[in-house]
Amino acid sequence: MQVAVVGITGYAGMVLYQLLRQHPEVDGINLYDHKLTKNEKLSEMVPAFYTDETFVQPYSPDSIMADNQLVFFATSAGVTSKLSRPYIEADFPVIDLSGDLRLNDEAEYERWYHKPSASKQALNSAHYGLADFESAHEQKYVANPGCYATATLLGLAPLVQADLIDPDTIIVDAKSGTSGAGKNPAQSTHFTQANDNLQIYKPNQHQHIPEIMLELQHWNDHVKAIQFMTTLIPITRGIMSTIYAKVEPGVDAKQIDRAYKQTYEGKPFVNYTGEHLPDIKQVVGTNNCNIGVVYNPVTGTVMADSVIDNLLKGAAGQAVQNFNQMFDYQETSGLELQTFLP
Amino acid sequence: MQVAVVGITGYAGMVLYQLLRQHPEVDGINLYDHKLTKNEKLSEMVPAFYTDETFVQPYSPDSIMADNQLVFFATSAGVTSKLSRPYIEADFPVIDLSGDLRLNDEAEYERWYHKPSASKQALNSAHYGLADFESAHEQKYVANPGCYATATLLGLAPLVQADLIDPDTIIVDAKSGTSGAGKNPAQSTHFTQANDNLQIYKPNQHQHIPEIMLELQHWNDHVKAIQFMTTLIPITRGIMSTIYAKVEPGVDAKQIDRAYKQTYEGKPFVNYTGEHLPDIKQVVGTNNCNIGVVYNPVTGTVMADSVIDNLLKGAAGQAVQNFNQMFDYQETSGLELQTFLP
Amino acid sequence: MQVAVVGITGYAGMVLYQLLRQHPEVDGINLYDHKLTKNEKLSEMVPAFYTDETFVQPYSPDSIMADNQLVFFATSAGVTSKLSRPYIEADFPVIDLSGDLRLNDEAEYERWYHKPSASKQALNSAHYGLADFESAHEQKYVANPGCYATATLLGLAPLVQADLIDPDTIIVDAKSGTSGAGKNPAQSTHFTQANDNLQIYKPNQHQHIPEIMLELQHWNDHVKAIQFMTTLIPITRGIMSTIYAKVEPGVDAKQIDRAYKQTYEGKPFVNYTGEHLPDIKQVVGTNNCNIGVVYNPVTGTVMADSVIDNLLKGAAGQAVQNFNQMFDYQETSGLELQTFLP
Amino acid sequence: MQVAVVGITGYAGMVLYQLLRQHPEVDGINLYDHKLTKNEKLSEMVPAFYTDETFVQPYSPDSIMADNQLVFFATSAGVTSKLSRPYIEADFPVIDLSGDLRLNDEAEYERWYHKPSASKQALNSAHYGLADFESAHEQKYVANPGCYATATLLGLAPLVQADLIDPDTIIVDAKSGTSGAGKNPAQSTHFTQANDNLQIYKPNQHQHIPEIMLELQHWNDHVKAIQFMTTLIPITRGIMSTIYAKVEPGVDAKQIDRAYKQTYEGKPFVNYTGEHLPDIKQVVGTNNCNIGVVYNPVTGTVMADSVIDNLLKGAAGQAVQNFNQMFDYQETSGLELQTFLP
Repeated sequence: MQVAVVGITGYAGMVLYQLLRQHPEVDGINLYDHKLTKNEKLSEMVPAFYTDETFVQPYSPDSIMADNQLVFFATSAGVTSKLSRPYIEADFPVIDLSGDLRLNDEAEYERWYHKPSASKQALNSAHYGLADFESAHEQKYVANPGCYATATLLGLAPLVQADLIDPDTIIVDAKSGTSGAGKNPAQSTHFTQANDNLQIYKPNQHQHIPEIMLELQHWNDHVKAIQFMTTLIPITRGIMSTIYAKVEPGVDAKQIDRAYKQTYEGKPFVNYTGEHLPDIKQVVGTNNCNIGVVYNPVTGTVMADSVIDNLLKGAAGQAVQNFNQMFDYQETSGLELQTFLP
Repeated sequence: MQVAVVGITGYAGMVLYQLLRQHPEVDGINLYDHKLTKNEKLSEMVPAFYTDETFVQPYSPDSIMADNQLVFFATSAGVTSKLSRPYIEADFPVIDLSGDLRLNDEAEYERWYHKPSASKQALNSAHYGLADFESAHEQKYVANPGCYATATLLGLAPLVQADLIDPDTIIVDAKSGTSGAGKNPAQSTHFTQANDNLQIYKPNQHQHIPEIMLELQHWNDHVKAIQFMTTLIPITRGIMSTIYAKVEPGVDAKQIDRAYKQTYEGKPFVNYTGEHLPDIKQVVGTNNCNIGVVYNPVTGTVMADSVIDNLLKGAAGQAVQNFNQMFDYQETSGLELQTFLP
Repeated sequence: MQVAVVGITGYAGMVLYQLLRQHPEVDGINLYDHKLTKNEKLSEMVPAFYTDETFVQPYSPDSIMADNQLVFFATSAGVTSKLSRPYIEADFPVIDLSGDLRLNDEAEYERWYHKPSASKQALNSAHYGLADFESAHEQKYVANPGCYATATLLGLAPLVQADLIDPDTIIVDAKSGTSGAGKNPAQSTHFTQANDNLQIYKPNQHQHIPEIMLELQHWNDHVKAIQFMTTLIPITRGIMSTIYAKVEPGVDAKQIDRAYKQTYEGKPFVNYTGEHLPDIKQVVGTNNCNIGVVYNPVTGTVMADSVIDNLLKGAAGQAVQNFNQMFDYQETSGLELQTFLP
Repeated sequence: MQVAVVGITGYAGMVLYQLLRQHPEVDGINLYDHKLTKNEKLSEMVPAFYTDETFVQPYSPDSIMADNQLVFFATSAGVTSKLSRPYIEADFPVIDLSGDLRLNDEAEYERWYHKPSASKQALNSAHYGLADFESAHEQKYVANPGCYATATLLGLAPLVQADLIDPDTIIVDAKSGTSGAGKNPAQSTHFTQANDNLQIYKPNQHQHIPEIMLELQHWNDHVKAIQFMTTLIPITRGIMSTIYAKVEPGVDAKQIDRAYKQTYEGKPFVNYTGEHLPDIKQVVGTNNCNIGVVYNPVTGTVMADSVIDNLLKGAAGQAVQNFNQMFDYQETSGLELQTFLP
C-alpha cells in the first residue's frame, strides 16, 4: 500500500506522516506539496525531520493517482475546495483533513469560512468521517472532522442520541492549545502574548459550529442550535470541550451513566471515565477521547468533560482511523499509541 | 494609620503587604503570625522580601488592637472562625480575606468548607464586602469576597439585577491560575502535572458557590441555583469567569449593553468592554475587573467574559478597596496600579 | 517637565510609558511615532492601553524639541542611526533605548547590526549609559545599554574592575525570555515552538557582544574577548546571565565576596546576595539587578548569577534611571517598584 | 522474556513500563513495589495507566528472580544500595536506574548523596552503562547513567577522547525540565514558583558530578575537575547541556568537526548536527542525543550543545538500550521512537 500526503509542512501533516511511517499496512509514503515546482528535501522543508532523506514532490493529481492508492490532504481551508474534483471524478480514495468538504451547502461554507466553496456536487460526495460513529468503509471521499467538532460531538453523542437533554440548552465551552491555530506565527500565538494568558476568540463564529450542528441534527433533529465558545490556552497540544445541558424531566445520573457506557462500550478510542473527570494529559499522544460526566441535581444540569489530542484524535489520528475503516484494516492499526508521560 | 496583617506567608498576604507599603494613608504595617511564638525576620519567613528588615510578631489580639486601627486577616479557611471573636466583641475593624465569615449559616459553612464554623453571631456580624456594590463604609467586620465569586458576581450583576436572564439557566465555566490554589505544593499544582494541562476540579463542590448564591439572591430572589465549574489552567495569576445564560423573552443585545454600561458607569475598577472580549493579561497587576459581553441571537444566550487578577481584585486589591471605603479614603487610594505588560 | 516618547508600540516603549506616567517629576508625556502621518488614538495602536485617551502624533523633530525637554527613543535598531542628528546638533537631551549609538565605530556597528551606521560624529557624541557605573549627569545623548549587556556587565564588574579573574577565561551563558525578541511574531517565538523548549540563537553573533567588550575594556584593558551565548527560554520576562571565569592565582572566596560588597554598597538598584543565588522572579517587575556568586575552589572558577527584568533594568527602567541622573532627580524617582509576586 | 520493574510510581518507572510494553522481545512485565505489602492495581497506584488491568506485587527478591530474567530498578537514591545484594550474589541481571551503584567509592557516594552507601563489593560489581560507549554485553549489574551525566558525557566525549581541549577549562551549564526533579511536590517545582522562572540549584553540589568525572577520567586522565552548574527551567521534559572548553593550541574547527563525526558515525542514538544547534524539542520523545558544536576562534573556545529527553535517553530509554546490549538484541529494539511534534 502506497499512500500520498499533501501538506506535510503543517502540524497535522507532520503528525500524520509520523503515524503513517509506523503503520503496519503502509509500505511507502509519497509526499507532495501544492506550493512546490520541483522536488525538495523534506529535511529542509520541515527541520523536525532532520534525519529523513525523503523528497517532497510538486503536486500532481496524475502522479498521485498513478503511484498511490489513497491521498491524504492535510492542507488549510481553501485548498481542497479547488483540488478535490479529479479525485471525486475518478472515484479515487481521499481523506481530507481540512474543513473544505465537511458541510453540505455552498452558502453555508462561504458564510463560515469566508472563502469560495467547493461545488455542490463535491460537497455531496463527501462522507463526514466522525470515525467512532460513521464508518468510512466503502467511502471514497472522507471529510475528516475538525478537532473541536470531534471532542464536542463525542462528548454530546450519548446525551443527544438518547434524547436525555433539552436540545435547546446545549452550551459548549471549548479550550484549545496553540497548535490548533497552525504553524504560521500570529500575534495571538506569540509566546509573549499567549503565555500566562487566556484568550476567547471567534465568539459564535467558529467554523466548526456548522459541522457540529449537521451531525447533531443527523442524530436528533430537535437540536436547533448550540452555544459554542472557544478559548486559546497556553498549552501546545490538546482540547478540552466542557459541555453543559439541562436534562429532560425525569432523567437522572444513572440513566446518563448508562447511556455513556452503552454508547462507548467496545469503541477502542473512547474511554468513558464516569465521574473521574479527565485532564488533558490523559490523552495527549494518543488517538483517545476520554469523557467524564457529572450530573448536578441542584441545577438539573449535566456537565461532560471531553478531552482529545487535537493533532491526533482531532486530526491525523482520526484520519488514520478512517483510513483503517476504508481499507478494512484493524481499526487500531498504527494507532496503538501511548500517552505522553508525565 | 497603623494596620495589622496576619498571614504574611501566603500569596494574598504577600501581595496585600506590597499594596499597603505603597498606600498613602498607611503609616505603618505590623505583621503577626498565628504560628509564631517569638519574633522572626520577615526576610527569612518570606524570601521574596529579602531586603525587608521588618520583624513578624507572634499573634496577639491585645497587641493588635492596642497598636493598630485595623487588622487584615489573610489566613486560610479555618483560622478566623476561631480568632474573630475578640475583635467582634470590641467592635474593632477587621478585613478578613478568608472565607470563614462570608456565609450566614453555620451548617452551610460546614457543608462547603468541611471545617467547624464560626458562631452564628459572628457570621451575622460580618458584612460581605463585594466592594463595587456593597460599601464597607461604617462596617466593622468585612468578609472580603472570594476570587471566583468576585469575577462571577461582577460579570453577572447587570443581568441579574435588571432581570434580563432566565434565572434558572446560569452556567459559569471559571478558569484560574495556580496561585489561587495557594502556596503549599500539591500534586495538581506540581509543574510537571499542571504544565501543558487543564484540570477540572471540585465539580459542583467549590466553596465559592454559596457566597455567589447569597449575593445573587440578595439582588434577585428568583435565582435558585447556578451551575459553577472550576478549571485549573497553566498560568500563575488570573481568573476568567465565562458566564452563560438564556435571556428573557424580548431582551436584545442593546438592552444588555445598556445594562452593563449603566451598572458600571463611574465605578473605577470595573471596565465594561462591550463585544471586545478581554483576555486575562488586560487585568493582571491591577485591581480591575474587565467584562466583555456577546449576545447570540441564534441561541438566545448571552455570554459574559469577566477577568480579574485573583490576588488583587480577587483578594488583596479588593481588601484595600474595602479598607478605603471603611475609612472614607479615596476609593482608588493605593490602587492606582498598572497592568503588568507585556 | 514634558517628555517625548518615540516608539510606544514596542514592549520597551510600552513599559517606559507606564513608568513615566507614574514619575513624580514628569508633568506630561507626548507620544510620537515615526510611521504615522496623522494623529492616532493610543488605545487603538496599543490595545493594552484601552482606557487611555492620549493621541500619538506623527514624528517631527521640530515639535519634539519645541514641546518637550527630552526625548526617549524606544525604537528598533536602524531608526536613530538615521534620526539622531538634529538632536545632537541642537544639544537636545535624548535617551536612546536602541543599540544604534552604543558603539564607537561605524564598521563595528555594521558588522554586528547588519545595517548602515550612524555617523562617526554621532557615535562619538553618545554616552554609554550603564547607569550604576557611568552617570548620565550633564550628558546630552545617552545610549541606554542592551538588556543582556546590563545583566552581564553588572555581574562581571567587581571581578573585572578588581582584576580578580584571568581576563582570558570569561564565559557567559545568558538566558532570556521571549519579550526580549520583541513584538513581531516569528517562528522561534511562536508559542508552539517556544513552549517546552530551549533554543540557543546567534552563537557568537549577538549584537550585545561589542558593547559589553567596550565597557569591559574601559574597566580593564586586559580583557580581549568574551565567550557569550544566548538561549531563548519559555518565560515572558527576565534575563539570567550565568557568568564563569577562572580566578587569578591566590584569589579566594573572601576576596570575591568583598569586591562585590564594596562595588555595590550604596547602589540602590544592585543587590549582591552572596551565595544565595537569585532566581529570575526576584527581580521581575523591578529595576533591580540581583547577583549571587559562588566560588568553586576545586576548579578555581567563580560563577556569578546575575538576573534582571529585561524590560525594566534591561530597557525602560534603566532609561528612567538615566533620566533621573541627567536632570539631577533622586536616582530612584519613579522606580520604587515592587517585585511581581508570586 | 519476562522482566521485572521495581519503582513504577516514579516518572522513570512509568516511562520504562511504556517502553517495555512495546518492546518486541518482552513477553511479560511483572511490577513490584518495595512499599507494598499486598497486591495493588496499577491503575490505582498510577492514574495515568487508568485502563491497565495489571497488579503491582509486593517486593520480593525471590519471586523476582524466580519469575523473571532481569530486573529494572527505577527507584530513588538510597534503595538499591540496600536491595542490590541478593542479585549480585546470584549473578542475576539488574539494570539500576538510580545513582546508588554508579560510583566506585563508598565515601564518595556518601559525600554526594548524603546517604549510606552500598558495600564496596557491590560498587565494584556494577558496570557504568553509558550505552553509546560502554557496552553492557555480558554485564550483570548495570548502573544506568544519570540524565545530566548522559547529556554532558556525550557532548564532551569527542573533545576529551581526542585530547582536543585543555582539560582544565571544562565548564558545563546544564538546564533541566521539572520532571528531572521527580514526582514529589516541592516548593521549587510548584507551578507558581517554577513558571516564568529560572532557578539555579545545587551549585557545585550536583550528585551527577562524580559519575561524570569517573567517566571523563576513564577516557582521559588529564581531566581533574569540571565546573558543572544546573538550572531548573519551566519545561516538563528535556535537558540541554551547554558545554564550554578552551581548545588546545593548534586545534581548529575542522578537527573538532571531524572528531564528532568519527565518534558518532554509526551510533544510532547520537546525531551530530554540526553548527545547527539543536533545540530540546528535537529529541523529546526519543532516545536520541543531538549535539551541535560551534567553535569561536576569537576566544579559542568550543561550545557544544547537547540535548536529550531526560526520561528517555537520560533514564528509561538508555536502560532499554542497555537491556538490548545485555541480551544481544538489536540495539534499537523497542526504541524506534519519534519526536513528539510539534
